Amino acid sequence: MALSMRCNVKSVFRFVHKSNSHRRLFKAGKATGTTSLPKAQVFSGIQPTGVPHLGNYLGALESWVALQDKYSTVMYSIVDLHSITQPQDPQMLRENILDMAASLLACGIDPTRSILFQQSQVSEHAELSWILGCLTSMPRLRHLPQWKMKSKQKNEGSVGLYTYPVLQAADILLYKSTHVPVGEDQIQHLELAQDLARIFNNQYEEFFPEPCALLSGTRKVKSLRDPSSKMSKSDPQKLATVFLTDTPDDIVLKIRRAVTDLTSEVTYEPESRPGVSNLVSMHAAVSGQSVEEVVRLAEGMDTGQYKNVVAEAIVQTLQPIRLEIQRLRADRGHLESLLAKGAEKAHSLAAPVMTEVRKLVGFY
Amino acid sequence: MALSMRCNVKSVFRFVHKSNSHRRLFKAGKATGTTSLPKAQVFSGIQPTGVPHLGNYLGALESWVALQDKYSTVMYSIVDLHSITQPQDPQMLRENILDMAASLLACGIDPTRSILFQQSQVSEHAELSWILGCLTSMPRLRHLPQWKMKSKQKNEGSVGLYTYPVLQAADILLYKSTHVPVGEDQIQHLELAQDLARIFNNQYEEFFPEPCALLSGTRKVKSLRDPSSKMSKSDPQKLATVFLTDTPDDIVLKIRRAVTDLTSEVTYEPESRPGVSNLVSMHAAVSGQSVEEVVRLAEGMDTGQYKNVVAEAIVQTLQPIRLEIQRLRADRGHLESLLAKGAEKAHSLAAPVMTEVRKLVGFY
Repeated sequence: MALSMRCNVKSVFRFVHKSNSHRRLFKAGKATGTTSLPKAQVFSGIQPTGVPHLGNYLGALESWVALQDKYSTVMYSIVDLHSITQPQDPQMLRENILDMAASLLACGIDPTRSILFQQSQVSEHAELSWILGCLTSMPRLRHLPQWKMKSKQKNEGSVGLYTYPVLQAADILLYKSTHVPVGEDQIQHLELAQDLARIFNNQYEEFFPEPCALLSGTRKVKSLRDPSSKMSKSDPQKLATVFLTDTPDDIVLKIRRAVTDLTSEVTYEPESRPGVSNLVSMHAAVSGQSVEEVVRLAEGMDTGQYKNVVAEAIVQTLQPIRLEIQRLRADRGHLESLLAKGAEKAHSLAAPVMTEVRKLVGFY
Repeated sequence: MALSMRCNVKSVFRFVHKSNSHRRLFKAGKATGTTSLPKAQVFSGIQPTGVPHLGNYLGALESWVALQDKYSTVMYSIVDLHSITQPQDPQMLRENILDMAASLLACGIDPTRSILFQQSQVSEHAELSWILGCLTSMPRLRHLPQWKMKSKQKNEGSVGLYTYPVLQAADILLYKSTHVPVGEDQIQHLELAQDLARIFNNQYEEFFPEPCALLSGTRKVKSLRDPSSKMSKSDPQKLATVFLTDTPDDIVLKIRRAVTDLTSEVTYEPESRPGVSNLVSMHAAVSGQSVEEVVRLAEGMDTGQYKNVVAEAIVQTLQPIRLEIQRLRADRGHLESLLAKGAEKAHSLAAPVMTEVRKLVGFY
């Protein structure tokens, strides 16, 4: 039943972005390019924060789309149970869930090749989370990033905030996932999922595979107004962030106002020239070229001229996504039915796993 | 939608046991004895610890049976999700669940008049628990009895142990319960359920009634070997505890060996003569007489003679229960199908509540 694949996070599968496709560097040096897709179960979750920005797209979503060509089963969950660990306005949350679904579809998540669903529609997530919580010691969660960071912002966090890494572990293990695309900041949470798989297997029987990290690329898109910090949805400076729904005019304006420095030449020196380097790296990413290629292309231009080129390249990439989001948003019923179908598929995978878990625990 | 009934635990409905029936003392002095049952939703949970003992029966189960005549909807849940907050042997847990079901039925829980079900078979419990956990601050749980007592026994308890009062609150609120039979030791946990109903109603809209405590009787059956402590399933002294499955010979032996004192007269003085008073109080309870009546009956007997009378009365009460447990245990399939039907009924009440909750929270 259980896959025997094991890995620890120190030796992970790693994505390298190149020409809008992805090469996997296998730790064990397995051959790539075989015709049948590797039998694997990929799971990833994303909080329904509304329409993603360019940093989300280049940092994660684009590679999620590519995973559909690489693995046999790929699941993307809009994790609304996680989002309520922080206070939410219910109507806004509902809109954000649908906007996130529309955005994922518009970016290329294909519901015929992957399973896109809303976490709260599959009751097994909360059920497995309870069981795994009974195998998690209280101090194990105290030093995880979600608690250390967010509980300070709001005086004392909730039980949900404290325990959400356990729910994350349940999200992953519920589908016996073997691979989980994560950013560096989520590695400690994935380690908890690995630990809980081991603890469960030791206590009952070998059942859950230990999921491996698929470290998504090193692309970090920076704020256009302050290139020392990451591009963020909640940036108070309106011109700092490019959203997938920005019009061409919005994009041109934001890139034109992007903070650079007093040198007019275009070079890639992220440490000493973060502003222009951020433009170069976005340009390379959206055009599917290497950094060297785009720097060569920009030879002889000043940063003002170069900004037009970058803006145009971003518009080219985002324009079809924006139009598709618009189209999908206009038909709420269609979106809801897509999510319902996704939940049905997810449930059909989760139900037999939970039946087994209940038996192993002694409930049946 | 929400019942407007409110009460705090300081002014609760209180059961008084009398002649094997129960009088309710209404706080607001409502008339009793009406022909139609009060529209109320009673919920109680019991951990699957296997066959109950006489203390469980007289302290709680007997009054549970009586509640079926008093209220329109009465639910009894075998709370297996709670039991795994402590380590369990899976096979033993399964047997304990079935033994508890058989025992409850044998004591008089009637599946045509109440809903008897296994908590883990109704997924909405864990789902609502997650949502309520997002409304519970971490320090709120730190001083509750379950954590203060049990986490010390096992060094550091699990996340499940810490958060189980939230699951208890979900158990209760999931059915919009209005009344919860509790012992004194559970009052703080019920207060959490009341708080969470209020917090949810404030944050979203008036939805959950605040459940009232039905304080079950003051009957405290003591250990037969040490009448200063409660009768307990886990008492290491085998003769200390009468189980519902004890044979008449077992019962006679245990009562005969019950610790009393050097005075031979039968009196009821719980402080100064706890041993013989425990016999008197058990006798009164099983025979449906008052303490004064049984003391009068025992006039002229010494404690040795009186023990035979008490043993006989206990045998009379427990014999039919024991035989019924035996009968039910012999047909595992029947027990399992009864539990499945109970879960179906519970689910049919829980599902529309959870649908509403999901809408209020913003998931739909």
